[in-house]
Amino acid sequence: MSRSDLARVECTIARAVEIVGDAWTLMVLREMFLGTRRFDDLQRFTGASPHLLSTRLKRLEAEKIVVRRAYSDRPPRYEYRLSERGRDLWPVVVALKTWGDRWLDGPEEPPVSLVHTTCGRSTRPRMVCSECGEPMHARTSRATLSKAMVRERDAI
Amino acid sequence: MSRSDLARVECTIARAVEIVGDAWTLMVLREMFLGTRRFDDLQRFTGASPHLLSTRLKRLEAEKIVVRRAYSDRPPRYEYRLSERGRDLWPVVVALKTWGDRWLDGPEEPPVSLVHTTCGRSTRPRMVCSECGEPMHARTSRATLSKAMVRERDAI
Repeated sequence: MSRSDLARVECTIARAVEIVGDAWTLMVLREMFLGTRRFDDLQRFTGASPHLLSTRLKRLEAEKIVVRRAYSDRPPRYEYRLSERGRDLWPVVVALKTWGDRWLDGPEEPPVSLVHTTCGRSTRPRMVCSECGEPMHARTSRATLSKAMVRERDAI
Repeated sequence: MSRSDLARVECTIARAVEIVGDAWTLMVLREMFLGTRRFDDLQRFTGASPHLLSTRLKRLEAEKIVVRRAYSDRPPRYEYRLSERGRDLWPVVVALKTWGDRWLDGPEEPPVSLVHTTCGRSTRPRMVCSECGEPMHARTSRATLSKAMVRERDAI
């Protein structure tokens, strides 16, 4: 199957992957979470070519993850902001950061540090169980598949 | 800059993206977290072509995310397992699932459901602040960059 076929499967992980599972798309998201909004700056800080960046932004706009807004008429210039749907991808980028900080260092100080503005403290966000609040890992998780997903997999 | 140049930047998000920011790699990780270990099954359930799957597995093995082990000598057959470093990518896949379940449905029942084996309950893992334990979102997070990362960005 081709990459775009992932958009049509049952699994929501696969469908999310089809939309954002791409290096430049993830770099654009990182950069937008750092507050960058303009095409030239996005290009500069992600390192994507104008063509690659443009195709990623168009797709993100089509998926309603990014909203484009004109900030100058002459010349026409646009800025890009994350929608609520886009901001909700934050845990994906943070999970990549957490993994990168643990396994890929490098310097003692993480390149990107996070503050939780609600409590005001420097934080390292982590995943916890919604029910008991304890940290969750692959080892303490068991996945089950819906009937529809089982049917789809049986039919492959 | 090219995709592979992301491996050499300061930012650990970019470096993580360079390794796993790819649709087929993420599909392989999803599938391995579902317990699949053999090449043929990985191919079947991810939908990747043998060539694409083989390049992804080789890279994951080179990055010590996946460990390859022979389970048959004649014919030579291998199974693939996640290392600790690989299992630690679980939050990335779960974050994609959480986003997909919220924004891409579909069916009422999530295609993949998770149980927290420690407390035994059906769970929807979420990201919380390591300090106060409250849920964290993009809106309640502020990022700061290390001096080295600021220097690197100033020099672009």
